[in-house]
Amino acid sequence: MVNGKLWGGRFSKQSAAWIDEFGASIGFDQEMAHEDLEGSIAHAQMLEKTGIISADDATKIISGLQEIQEDLQNNKLEFKASLEDIHMNIETILTSKIGPVAGKLHTARSRNDQVATDLHLYLKNRIPEVISAIQSLQVILVKKAADNIETIIPGYTHLQHAQPISYAHYLLAYYEMLKRDIDRFMFNVKHTDINPLGAAALAGTTFPIDRFYTTNILGFNDTYNNSLDAVSDRDFVLEFLSDASILMVHLSRFCEEIILWCSYEFGYLELDDSYSTGSSIMPQKKNPDMAELIRGKSGRVFGHLQSLLTTMKGLPLAYNKDMQEDKEGVFDTVKTIIPSIKVFSGMVETLKINKTKMLHATQQDYSNATEFADYLANKGIPFRQAHGIVGQLVFEGIQTGKTLQEIPLSKLQQISPLIDEDIFNKLTSKEAVARRNSYGGTGFEQVKFQVDLAKKELNL
Amino acid sequence: MVNGKLWGGRFSKQSAAWIDEFGASIGFDQEMAHEDLEGSIAHAQMLEKTGIISADDATKIISGLQEIQEDLQNNKLEFKASLEDIHMNIETILTSKIGPVAGKLHTARSRNDQVATDLHLYLKNRIPEVISAIQSLQVILVKKAADNIETIIPGYTHLQHAQPISYAHYLLAYYEMLKRDIDRFMFNVKHTDINPLGAAALAGTTFPIDRFYTTNILGFNDTYNNSLDAVSDRDFVLEFLSDASILMVHLSRFCEEIILWCSYEFGYLELDDSYSTGSSIMPQKKNPDMAELIRGKSGRVFGHLQSLLTTMKGLPLAYNKDMQEDKEGVFDTVKTIIPSIKVFSGMVETLKINKTKMLHATQQDYSNATEFADYLANKGIPFRQAHGIVGQLVFEGIQTGKTLQEIPLSKLQQISPLIDEDIFNKLTSKEAVARRNSYGGTGFEQVKFQVDLAKKELNL
Amino acid sequence: MVNGKLWGGRFSKQSAAWIDEFGASIGFDQEMAHEDLEGSIAHAQMLEKTGIISADDATKIISGLQEIQEDLQNNKLEFKASLEDIHMNIETILTSKIGPVAGKLHTARSRNDQVATDLHLYLKNRIPEVISAIQSLQVILVKKAADNIETIIPGYTHLQHAQPISYAHYLLAYYEMLKRDIDRFMFNVKHTDINPLGAAALAGTTFPIDRFYTTNILGFNDTYNNSLDAVSDRDFVLEFLSDASILMVHLSRFCEEIILWCSYEFGYLELDDSYSTGSSIMPQKKNPDMAELIRGKSGRVFGHLQSLLTTMKGLPLAYNKDMQEDKEGVFDTVKTIIPSIKVFSGMVETLKINKTKMLHATQQDYSNATEFADYLANKGIPFRQAHGIVGQLVFEGIQTGKTLQEIPLSKLQQISPLIDEDIFNKLTSKEAVARRNSYGGTGFEQVKFQVDLAKKELNL
Amino acid sequence: MVNGKLWGGRFSKQSAAWIDEFGASIGFDQEMAHEDLEGSIAHAQMLEKTGIISADDATKIISGLQEIQEDLQNNKLEFKASLEDIHMNIETILTSKIGPVAGKLHTARSRNDQVATDLHLYLKNRIPEVISAIQSLQVILVKKAADNIETIIPGYTHLQHAQPISYAHYLLAYYEMLKRDIDRFMFNVKHTDINPLGAAALAGTTFPIDRFYTTNILGFNDTYNNSLDAVSDRDFVLEFLSDASILMVHLSRFCEEIILWCSYEFGYLELDDSYSTGSSIMPQKKNPDMAELIRGKSGRVFGHLQSLLTTMKGLPLAYNKDMQEDKEGVFDTVKTIIPSIKVFSGMVETLKINKTKMLHATQQDYSNATEFADYLANKGIPFRQAHGIVGQLVFEGIQTGKTLQEIPLSKLQQISPLIDEDIFNKLTSKEAVARRNSYGGTGFEQVKFQVDLAKKELNL
Repeated sequence: MVNGKLWGGRFSKQSAAWIDEFGASIGFDQEMAHEDLEGSIAHAQMLEKTGIISADDATKIISGLQEIQEDLQNNKLEFKASLEDIHMNIETILTSKIGPVAGKLHTARSRNDQVATDLHLYLKNRIPEVISAIQSLQVILVKKAADNIETIIPGYTHLQHAQPISYAHYLLAYYEMLKRDIDRFMFNVKHTDINPLGAAALAGTTFPIDRFYTTNILGFNDTYNNSLDAVSDRDFVLEFLSDASILMVHLSRFCEEIILWCSYEFGYLELDDSYSTGSSIMPQKKNPDMAELIRGKSGRVFGHLQSLLTTMKGLPLAYNKDMQEDKEGVFDTVKTIIPSIKVFSGMVETLKINKTKMLHATQQDYSNATEFADYLANKGIPFRQAHGIVGQLVFEGIQTGKTLQEIPLSKLQQISPLIDEDIFNKLTSKEAVARRNSYGGTGFEQVKFQVDLAKKELNL
Repeated sequence: MVNGKLWGGRFSKQSAAWIDEFGASIGFDQEMAHEDLEGSIAHAQMLEKTGIISADDATKIISGLQEIQEDLQNNKLEFKASLEDIHMNIETILTSKIGPVAGKLHTARSRNDQVATDLHLYLKNRIPEVISAIQSLQVILVKKAADNIETIIPGYTHLQHAQPISYAHYLLAYYEMLKRDIDRFMFNVKHTDINPLGAAALAGTTFPIDRFYTTNILGFNDTYNNSLDAVSDRDFVLEFLSDASILMVHLSRFCEEIILWCSYEFGYLELDDSYSTGSSIMPQKKNPDMAELIRGKSGRVFGHLQSLLTTMKGLPLAYNKDMQEDKEGVFDTVKTIIPSIKVFSGMVETLKINKTKMLHATQQDYSNATEFADYLANKGIPFRQAHGIVGQLVFEGIQTGKTLQEIPLSKLQQISPLIDEDIFNKLTSKEAVARRNSYGGTGFEQVKFQVDLAKKELNL
Repeated sequence: MVNGKLWGGRFSKQSAAWIDEFGASIGFDQEMAHEDLEGSIAHAQMLEKTGIISADDATKIISGLQEIQEDLQNNKLEFKASLEDIHMNIETILTSKIGPVAGKLHTARSRNDQVATDLHLYLKNRIPEVISAIQSLQVILVKKAADNIETIIPGYTHLQHAQPISYAHYLLAYYEMLKRDIDRFMFNVKHTDINPLGAAALAGTTFPIDRFYTTNILGFNDTYNNSLDAVSDRDFVLEFLSDASILMVHLSRFCEEIILWCSYEFGYLELDDSYSTGSSIMPQKKNPDMAELIRGKSGRVFGHLQSLLTTMKGLPLAYNKDMQEDKEGVFDTVKTIIPSIKVFSGMVETLKINKTKMLHATQQDYSNATEFADYLANKGIPFRQAHGIVGQLVFEGIQTGKTLQEIPLSKLQQISPLIDEDIFNKLTSKEAVARRNSYGGTGFEQVKFQVDLAKKELNL
Repeated sequence: MVNGKLWGGRFSKQSAAWIDEFGASIGFDQEMAHEDLEGSIAHAQMLEKTGIISADDATKIISGLQEIQEDLQNNKLEFKASLEDIHMNIETILTSKIGPVAGKLHTARSRNDQVATDLHLYLKNRIPEVISAIQSLQVILVKKAADNIETIIPGYTHLQHAQPISYAHYLLAYYEMLKRDIDRFMFNVKHTDINPLGAAALAGTTFPIDRFYTTNILGFNDTYNNSLDAVSDRDFVLEFLSDASILMVHLSRFCEEIILWCSYEFGYLELDDSYSTGSSIMPQKKNPDMAELIRGKSGRVFGHLQSLLTTMKGLPLAYNKDMQEDKEGVFDTVKTIIPSIKVFSGMVETLKINKTKMLHATQQDYSNATEFADYLANKGIPFRQAHGIVGQLVFEGIQTGKTLQEIPLSKLQQISPLIDEDIFNKLTSKEAVARRNSYGGTGFEQVKFQVDLAKKELNL
């Protein structure tokens, strides 16, 4: 056996040290050390149960692995790049602990199904953390919504004031997006929670293994039906990266609004000091750094998705070394999205909105123009014509510096004798919001209903 | 009303013709003409039912729209870029048919919820087509698998012969991938099959609309709970693009193998003439063009996913014109993946594999080395040591041009006295495949079991 | 010859019509009809010059091609999907015009070098159009800058007011970005302006062709040194897509600012009516649609870049059908960026800024805090300490509603006796801008200098 | 000053520790510690030269920084996340070494121009390393080409044998691609080698700094003309990522071929033991891991490009915290591409090709069909007709198991009396290659000429 490698039998030459390093994955796959040990213990238990190895050997192997688990817990493990990956590192440590019997652990198993098992376990353990972080954020949003049903803010399209809306309604829009995010991550569990162990290199094994036994021990929900598929499938990772990307789209949109609303010009929002930073040169600055950073990190996550799609494209079955590139992106995505959600949650929980300024804005901006048009339409004027009339009034208002509610009734009646005194009440923001009471609309009643629904969904 | 635009009221100037063209979406959103009409008819029915418009007006509007439906069917509609989009084009045609009453159709509706409705309907109609195309491909794979359970081909890792496998087993790996593809598209239905109509511009409406009524007429499964979310959500499109990307990963992998196996060197496969093309300069060529094209188109679909993620990133609520960019990518994806699956299906259905050549290859390639190592391990030699011994034999075999089965027993017994006559049977490919009978493995029994399972799933 | 295909010799079966359609590129590569004809004429001239075909044959072929050029000009050509691509379509039309002698045009040429030639010519013709559009935009920016050297606007970091700056300075930042864009497209010419014609299928030809002759006729600057490279290189397209992506980053940043500045809250900018649109439901809206659309289209262009990178990844030499996917993305990119630049140019040229509001903003926002800190640092207080002092003043100011210039001198002198009456002049925005006179800074003198430099660069 | 932050003046609350960590960049930007110190020393020298700080203060600061440089060299620096980034870490260390005078270093400078300076310096230092690695690879390719001018291998299109080519010709195709890669990285220098220092936060500074002086000390070639642009420009990074992506396309294509050619079926290539690995379960495997890994890493680099494009999209001027995300991708790209090129170089340098097998393949594959068609065309038969005739012969050959050179002359003359004895010489691979002597073709003379040209370019 040349070069001390576990696969060195047919080789006559050493590989260069830096080549080892280039190919080594131990620098990042130690992230899965916990899962690798868990998988190995289950495999050893199965080998014993099926009589493939003796009870004696199994006991030695398992207690050796448990010792390593403890060392891991206590940060006492040292990994080496020359041993390529987490699997070989742990096997070598095991050998140093229990001697050559360690070699029997690899019976009826290959690194291909082992690494797949590790990655499935890793993600299976992380998805609930992601979901739980999202749920905590939902709770914050819904509580804040419950407190702000009648808080009126400008509603935008094209970043132009469109119609005044309830702040709670706005927050609930994100609640809905996050609900879909959770749906997606929960669906992602389906294709993650499948046991590839026992697929061996690609074709299954001649040993009388019991795959359902390891499925059971490892708490997997399902077992891969096809060994080729088991070792070459990375769909569950792609799903995760895709779900994470969509989540980041949502966070980036909210962050964009926080950044806007914190600006001098909007001035609708103030971040808590603990969620903003200053400038080393401009003492007056209070920067929405966290919001910017999260917005910026959307690119990072999209990039990881694109990377893995590209890497997987056109790979023949079954395992190819290209697939080693599957891990860093997913590890980094986990470490990006969970803190992003948490920082975001804290930021949203502690931010203060300037209600007076927001309400005032909705009264000065002609966003009650639709009310006016609806009013006319209700009086029987075809909507398109009503729209034209009000457009004209807005145009004149802008010229003369008058809001719609400041135009005298007499003037209005010249435009249409159908207009009455009651128009002025209709033009207040509060009235405008209250009356948008169609299902899912911003009307206070509707919003109240949705808040209650959300509370129920969250068991609040 | 300046410039003939339906929103021209407050404007004092014409927009340049080429600006119109730049902003216009009619060039592509006419793809949704059918859905736009369907949505408008449902809206009109609802307006009548709730008494927002009179039965008389509703009748005029609906029969006008039905006339347009017929014109559409008969390719008699002409769309104009100056009318921006499909919605305004149809409204203008309607006006020319039934006069100003057409304007009432727009009561309690905005282009924002209208376009969202169209897109939801469009995708809702396409997903089943995608799923059905995938299912037809599954049927082909499973039938071919049923016919090839004992057909032996080389199994690869790193494009090196690893272990011989059943061709049926290989085909079933793709069957499994496609099953997950279907899972994903079916899940995608959940977030597609929701009705945004009635969200109006962003905030709902003051009219007493009945959103559940249109949900019902349009056959939607659910109704958006939040109007802001309803008009600004494109998750369902991102999901579709992501699912399509993963599907293309699968097809690209199979295509890569077809291309390889059609090469002179592999020579394992022959494409039917109807699924390959020749060269204009090299008369001997028979090119796997279709497989290459499908593989190449993976990039196209990934690009559409990345495009929409980028476009949606950081957009404040609710609708922004950036979102007009959501459509071309999804239309093109639909037109890419459905034909890709169909062409692929035909290609796979008609291809011939060279069984003799494949079987022969598995006997000459040392891919029975694992058998040998397993044999030794079964005799009690630790697997790692067994692996080393066989590695050495392979090394010598390559030097001397001998396969493992050609080494005389006496020589083998020098290596280990545990080796017996029965080793030679173990080294045949057929035996090697047959014995990999662990669950999901390539053993014939296992494969037969999986073929039967698949048949049941497909009702074959 | 089966199936009427020009490569049908060895085939015994027809390909299905819809397969033809799937593989056909005529739907989009007719975009290069002009270049294909140009390339064919040059090839025919070369074949004649080298004596490979007779003068007589050459004359027939060339005049046939010229006739087709005229037909193309007059929109009289009809292309068929069954003829696959632009090359075969034109060859067939040529045959119908001049008979079998048309076949000789294909001597010493393959579709592989032909399509490469077409694409090189196509892009070679478009890059100058892109550059010229950018230059026109630069002229607009510089003219506007020249008129606004002393116009003061808030300068932002983190979308917070940082320091007041000159509007001209802001515009010149984009001038600089566009200068780099032009640099990139000009560099892109280097790898585009190379002639692949004569590479034939992949290996060159046995005919005594003269590649330098066609290089010369077609106006190429260089000739590919390696025939394999000539037919399989798409670097020049990737460069173009990358340059286009960076350009779109720049436009999207400016568009973001236009959208912000057009908002009710900022209110710093008004778009000309001809470059904005209204809402079909909200009469008061004036939407910055064009800016949003251009911002949104950045995703589209990034997607095309990613698509082609993915498609090219891992393709063995030389030509593969995957590469047919190179064209639609680049055509669409050309049709996206040129109009985007033009629309953007018109939008910027016609927009009006609200100088009074912007100036006022810079006086109310504590963005003169750096002035104060610099003032203290100039008096000998270490900058970090000065920064701390002013931070404290800002904090108190925000509490009490006082700007820095409203704090009485006596109060200031309590903080530091070094503060003098002259502090108040230092705190005006005009003074603050004027004094930032370091090279490249926003000081009026500096900006004037840069405007003059830019004018010289643009020959204004 | 609250919370010990250098910008804490106006803040009344501590930020949470984990928020610090989320926002901190010290975990990765310490990669630029060397450049940060270099930039600071230059800044201090300039502050002294212009009299902004005293000679005495400057001396203290500079020797303090030099001490830190030494500590860095000796791995004696400890960085803290609570100090956010490399700039604040170094400033704090400096303060601990020389006391409050350290604060003066920040005069007339901001973190915005500081980080930009660091990143420009970082990349300016790395690009030559990349170029030099590529050049070493070119040398290997050209030397191997020089030794293999008459080595004949199959040339492929669509992975089908097309025409036999010279192995040297194949290698030179990659030489040409790498030449363009170098062109691109050299062009990238233009926009990297510009000094942003002195732009301060965004607007320049009121201090009488001399930016050309630091440009000179730091060895920059140019100085940013616009301070806003200086701090917000990341074009040079996008260019680098784009160039790196195209480079990875090239490497991935070559790697794909290595993987194919190492397969059992091709068997044209053997990797040196030092550049391949074995399998832990299959002793006969010799895996082209390095080639697969490099191919896989193309996705990683594309992802980084896409990430930064997405992050930069739509960011308003000038600096935003999103831009902190610019660094990890570029650092990882540097650490991916340089080792990839080096490992690739070693792999290619040491690989052995099986010349006999390759030559044999070209004689059995009908890839001399073009020769035959050219032969007929030379005899005056229109090329299209010649193509058809040979296609028919190939078809019959495949049926009867005869290569073209095995068909008797009499049979050939039945097809066309123009065919003569000399056809058989024309059909040998050597003759076929030799005769493709058009410029850039695979003819031996041509290839020799190109090898000599390349040697001259590389000064070999």
